[in-house]
Amino acid sequence: MKRCDGRDFNEVREISITRGFTSKTPGSVLIRAGETMILCTASLSASLPPWMNPDEARGWTTAEYNMLPGSTSPRKGRDRAGKIDGRSVEIQRLVGRSLRAAIDLKALGPRMLNVDCDVLQADGGTRTLSVTGAAVAAIDALRSLEEFANRLPGDPGFPMKSFLAAVSVGIVDGVPLLDLCYEEDAKAEVDMNIVMTDADRFVEVQGTGEEATFSENQLAQMLGLAKKGIHELIAKQKALFCQ
Amino acid sequence: MKRCDGRDFNEVREISITRGFTSKTPGSVLIRAGETMILCTASLSASLPPWMNPDEARGWTTAEYNMLPGSTSPRKGRDRAGKIDGRSVEIQRLVGRSLRAAIDLKALGPRMLNVDCDVLQADGGTRTLSVTGAAVAAIDALRSLEEFANRLPGDPGFPMKSFLAAVSVGIVDGVPLLDLCYEEDAKAEVDMNIVMTDADRFVEVQGTGEEATFSENQLAQMLGLAKKGIHELIAKQKALFCQ
Amino acid sequence: MKRCDGRDFNEVREISITRGFTSKTPGSVLIRAGETMILCTASLSASLPPWMNPDEARGWTTAEYNMLPGSTSPRKGRDRAGKIDGRSVEIQRLVGRSLRAAIDLKALGPRMLNVDCDVLQADGGTRTLSVTGAAVAAIDALRSLEEFANRLPGDPGFPMKSFLAAVSVGIVDGVPLLDLCYEEDAKAEVDMNIVMTDADRFVEVQGTGEEATFSENQLAQMLGLAKKGIHELIAKQKALFCQ
Amino acid sequence: MKRCDGRDFNEVREISITRGFTSKTPGSVLIRAGETMILCTASLSASLPPWMNPDEARGWTTAEYNMLPGSTSPRKGRDRAGKIDGRSVEIQRLVGRSLRAAIDLKALGPRMLNVDCDVLQADGGTRTLSVTGAAVAAIDALRSLEEFANRLPGDPGFPMKSFLAAVSVGIVDGVPLLDLCYEEDAKAEVDMNIVMTDADRFVEVQGTGEEATFSENQLAQMLGLAKKGIHELIAKQKALFCQ
Amino acid sequence: MKRCDGRDFNEVREISITRGFTSKTPGSVLIRAGETMILCTASLSASLPPWMNPDEARGWTTAEYNMLPGSTSPRKGRDRAGKIDGRSVEIQRLVGRSLRAAIDLKALGPRMLNVDCDVLQADGGTRTLSVTGAAVAAIDALRSLEEFANRLPGDPGFPMKSFLAAVSVGIVDGVPLLDLCYEEDAKAEVDMNIVMTDADRFVEVQGTGEEATFSENQLAQMLGLAKKGIHELIAKQKALFCQ
Amino acid sequence: MKRCDGRDFNEVREISITRGFTSKTPGSVLIRAGETMILCTASLSASLPPWMNPDEARGWTTAEYNMLPGSTSPRKGRDRAGKIDGRSVEIQRLVGRSLRAAIDLKALGPRMLNVDCDVLQADGGTRTLSVTGAAVAAIDALRSLEEFANRLPGDPGFPMKSFLAAVSVGIVDGVPLLDLCYEEDAKAEVDMNIVMTDADRFVEVQGTGEEATFSENQLAQMLGLAKKGIHELIAKQKALFCQ
Repeated sequence: MKRCDGRDFNEVREISITRGFTSKTPGSVLIRAGETMILCTASLSASLPPWMNPDEARGWTTAEYNMLPGSTSPRKGRDRAGKIDGRSVEIQRLVGRSLRAAIDLKALGPRMLNVDCDVLQADGGTRTLSVTGAAVAAIDALRSLEEFANRLPGDPGFPMKSFLAAVSVGIVDGVPLLDLCYEEDAKAEVDMNIVMTDADRFVEVQGTGEEATFSENQLAQMLGLAKKGIHELIAKQKALFCQ
Repeated sequence: MKRCDGRDFNEVREISITRGFTSKTPGSVLIRAGETMILCTASLSASLPPWMNPDEARGWTTAEYNMLPGSTSPRKGRDRAGKIDGRSVEIQRLVGRSLRAAIDLKALGPRMLNVDCDVLQADGGTRTLSVTGAAVAAIDALRSLEEFANRLPGDPGFPMKSFLAAVSVGIVDGVPLLDLCYEEDAKAEVDMNIVMTDADRFVEVQGTGEEATFSENQLAQMLGLAKKGIHELIAKQKALFCQ
Repeated sequence: MKRCDGRDFNEVREISITRGFTSKTPGSVLIRAGETMILCTASLSASLPPWMNPDEARGWTTAEYNMLPGSTSPRKGRDRAGKIDGRSVEIQRLVGRSLRAAIDLKALGPRMLNVDCDVLQADGGTRTLSVTGAAVAAIDALRSLEEFANRLPGDPGFPMKSFLAAVSVGIVDGVPLLDLCYEEDAKAEVDMNIVMTDADRFVEVQGTGEEATFSENQLAQMLGLAKKGIHELIAKQKALFCQ
Repeated sequence: MKRCDGRDFNEVREISITRGFTSKTPGSVLIRAGETMILCTASLSASLPPWMNPDEARGWTTAEYNMLPGSTSPRKGRDRAGKIDGRSVEIQRLVGRSLRAAIDLKALGPRMLNVDCDVLQADGGTRTLSVTGAAVAAIDALRSLEEFANRLPGDPGFPMKSFLAAVSVGIVDGVPLLDLCYEEDAKAEVDMNIVMTDADRFVEVQGTGEEATFSENQLAQMLGLAKKGIHELIAKQKALFCQ
Repeated sequence: MKRCDGRDFNEVREISITRGFTSKTPGSVLIRAGETMILCTASLSASLPPWMNPDEARGWTTAEYNMLPGSTSPRKGRDRAGKIDGRSVEIQRLVGRSLRAAIDLKALGPRMLNVDCDVLQADGGTRTLSVTGAAVAAIDALRSLEEFANRLPGDPGFPMKSFLAAVSVGIVDGVPLLDLCYEEDAKAEVDMNIVMTDADRFVEVQGTGEEATFSENQLAQMLGLAKKGIHELIAKQKALFCQ
Repeated sequence: MKRCDGRDFNEVREISITRGFTSKTPGSVLIRAGETMILCTASLSASLPPWMNPDEARGWTTAEYNMLPGSTSPRKGRDRAGKIDGRSVEIQRLVGRSLRAAIDLKALGPRMLNVDCDVLQADGGTRTLSVTGAAVAAIDALRSLEEFANRLPGDPGFPMKSFLAAVSVGIVDGVPLLDLCYEEDAKAEVDMNIVMTDADRFVEVQGTGEEATFSENQLAQMLGLAKKGIHELIAKQKALFCQ
């Protein structure tokens, strides 16, 4: 079987990450994998959610996910006037949870970190690429604070405890594949999204049969592919901060 | 460590399933596990979603999930006037996908199967208990059709290809536990929901670190517990139809 | 003329009232009359409506009414995304007003009493049965407060001043009937709902011609039937608290 | 006891009805009673509600009620963005039902009659004055059709079978009063709205205790007052069409 | 070319302005031009917008615009349940901005001035007539304050610094016309709305090609016509306050 | 007076236009002026608005405008759940009208042209830059149709009849300035947006006093500056298609 872009079954797409794509927010990352292109911006503010106890001195992190109308063909109408797009809700909850698993909310202090993932072009993998880009934007936003300047995940006191990346895996025509593009995703029997830290710990494991089911053995194969892919993505992230 | 209701780490809560709880819908199941109580009703109609090609002669299945205001303390306000409750959206998408993985949409014919899961009381595990109850309601709704009367999952031509159940597992204070009640869920480091068929095939695997992460070994332990629990739940489901 | 369930023109349907159906709210009543089945839960909180003057030391009582999708055939879509279901609004306002007429809001103290009427199955008379069930749920919620434990309507200081019940009457094919079931309601020329206390005082009188009108004489006959029915319902309510 | 505007307990306010206040709709009535001022416009169209069977050749009538922001003091915010104003919903349902009770929907033919009641100034009695004004606007809209030109309620074939008016009655400080103004309404123990035809038949009877209850005797007194008031209002309506 | 109502190309429609049309708000103006009829009410309150700094001691002015359903033929549905009517939003922003350009917000003091323009009948020019009427309603509302009683625009300390009126101009079949009625507006190639003060200063200039464009020379001609029309309208406004 | 970026009063900001920034829509333009950055995508479809008469064989063009949350500081919340952002509505109506003035809707044929302007970063002039970018995206979308391949505005049969650009002008501290950046815009007394074609014809003229007014002479000066700026912008647009 030939993959749409000539990759082997266990290869991720060529990825590019541009930090500082815009300048109004302290974190601003344009991330691309294949044709997928997402702008992840991270902002800090003092407006914590109303349900938080202000005396705790903890912060909070949340994410929003949105596809621009021109990101797909045919054009996608906007989420206006109260229509619920269940898929977007699901994705933004995933991105927010993933970040919170990697961030020490106490070390963050009483601050709100908002990460916005706006998909400029969609070609498969927007939810996992959102996590991978959001992590870099979050790091940059945190480094914009004087107390965390030039620090990195793992450094003592830095609120982001680890690097974090995500990748999709799936089973297409019975074969496990890493990092599905849109065409592969559309015909996948099983679709799985994995989020991991640079310490090889899971943050999220979401596997779904699409009008199909999968065996324990297939699950193991998919987890193995995902681990390989995430190693490569986290290496890319780390390289951004080294020179 | 003592569990809140005296169970061992690998025990599910006492479960009760009442078929035909109401009579306006062909499937109507009141399912309870501990204090959690959910009414799952399944209706059939001819109104397929607009995006389906009517020439395909396939059917569709979808689910809705809702918590009654009195199901929790403090009282939960209703989802009115366009507010998005992200958690409900996520759960109803999970229930719908799980059913579609077990249902042969061609064998269903050009019919819509709507399953509504209304939580009368919540004490942990509402999303997995919704799947387990919805599966029974769906079977009853299908059996209300003359052509499928007295058939069961696995019988030739019956649209529901397998029994289907779900259970939660989690890690609390470092210990993997099966079927979390509310108090356990509230302090779990990792929360996982597994949906499986009676052929031991996965339909959904969703594991989430709650401001925490988990190792490959912990994932394996949780999968093992879930499998044990689901075996027991599916045995309960099968017993409902045998006399 | 034969009534659908063999009753005489001046008989109410067999009624059953289960207190404590769920346990997360201090009042929780499952009430059934014929096929109609409603869960009425009553909660107490400190969150008074913003328009109330907090210095008055009065409380407030409000109600919400909702039909579950599976309560009728065909399935009823949910009230989401800001669609106004005028009938539900009208009913919940009726239930709230009826409770407030029987409750001494000063004696209630600065508390909010929320009553939720969720219709699990609808077969005529849901609005009047909601009032009858809500009254019992409200009594139980009030009795959960230490200061009102084991008190009943009529006891000194108990905020609910009287028992309260409601019943429908109507004119079908020119004949006045008590407690209409769905089929009778659907063809009634006149539809009337009466709420009364155990002191035979009216709380609400709502009579409506359905593309028809009615005479003074017919009004008198309907009021007489309603009074008889309410006597029987209030006797049932009182018996719940006596042993 | 002195009434706010010097009337006796059984007098209605001075009423004025201007037909043809605007000209874009075939029925357009500005109706005033005391300080209350309502514009009732009636339009005809071919767009019947989707739930009607087009083969029935029946028409339909519906009403909407709205208070302009400047109609009260303090200013009333608009019903925008999906907020439900329960009181407006209740009133517009009352107006619509009242009209349908007086209109022969078969004689109307497959037409939609929309009546809009927009309150320009509110000083008590807006719901009953809406009915009284809507009836005149509806008559004018029907007369704009060539087949019904110059006809009146009661004439053979005219879809509006009778004149129709409404009035409020109430109990204030224990005394039954006819046609309450705002100040009286605000302190009424019982508030009742009656809709009747020119044949002395009831269309709606709505009596409500406001944190209070009422006896059978009081109900009879209020019905007597309402009947007197409606006789006078219908005489006014009839006079509009006679010269 | 003959204009629909016999006017010359540079004539405004006959205008009538009734102050004190209703009495619940301190400013209440019914303004008519031809068949167009708008009720402009102006209210004062203490509720300033949340984004204002309360220490500034400045006030604010905002406007809302709405067309009643019966104001046009066919009937216009109401803006309920969150549907955005872009045209209404645009108009109410124009009215609000125009008032703020003429009002000294410091002199107004920490007060909110709300102006509501409700169109009772529409026949062209509702947005400009709303500005012209709103200005008079605003003056009356300000004069209702003791400190500004009997003052007028231009008087020292009066918050409304100048009279303010607006008029439409357009190009129809290549000819510039002043104050378009509905039929002219519907076929205009260019539609322009001008707001000016009594000192001949511009507040708003909005010219729009309707699937067409216009030259600098045509712009100059339209500005000249508008100036003439506004002179006449402001003369009318001033005359209202002089006797 | 020194301008924030060192420009002279009659200079536009450095502008860059990237065609084909994304590839899912036939027109995709990233346009920047100073720090302002907008993605304009143009899509074609067959779904014409419901109010169009399909027999006319005309097309339609509409635009949407949206600011990404990270485009400003502080972060801008999304337009979800039916909240009306009046400014966005106003801008998208401007962009749509401007395009329709330049497009021959008959020559377009029965097609819908949707243009989406999503602001990635905002630093003044987003509404005018949206028009300038939308025009280029629209040209590219039209050229993607075989019948219009390699055609340009002005070529016979090409639906876009002319190039189209927009620029802001304003009066800051009494001085007319061309192409305001955010800081200038925030303190401008007058803010004006002009849309013109390459034939020097006006499409839109919108001038607004911001709590201020302006004279005829100032209007003339601003129109002169705008004309100069638009000449330069249209020259840039034309150069994109020439090599």
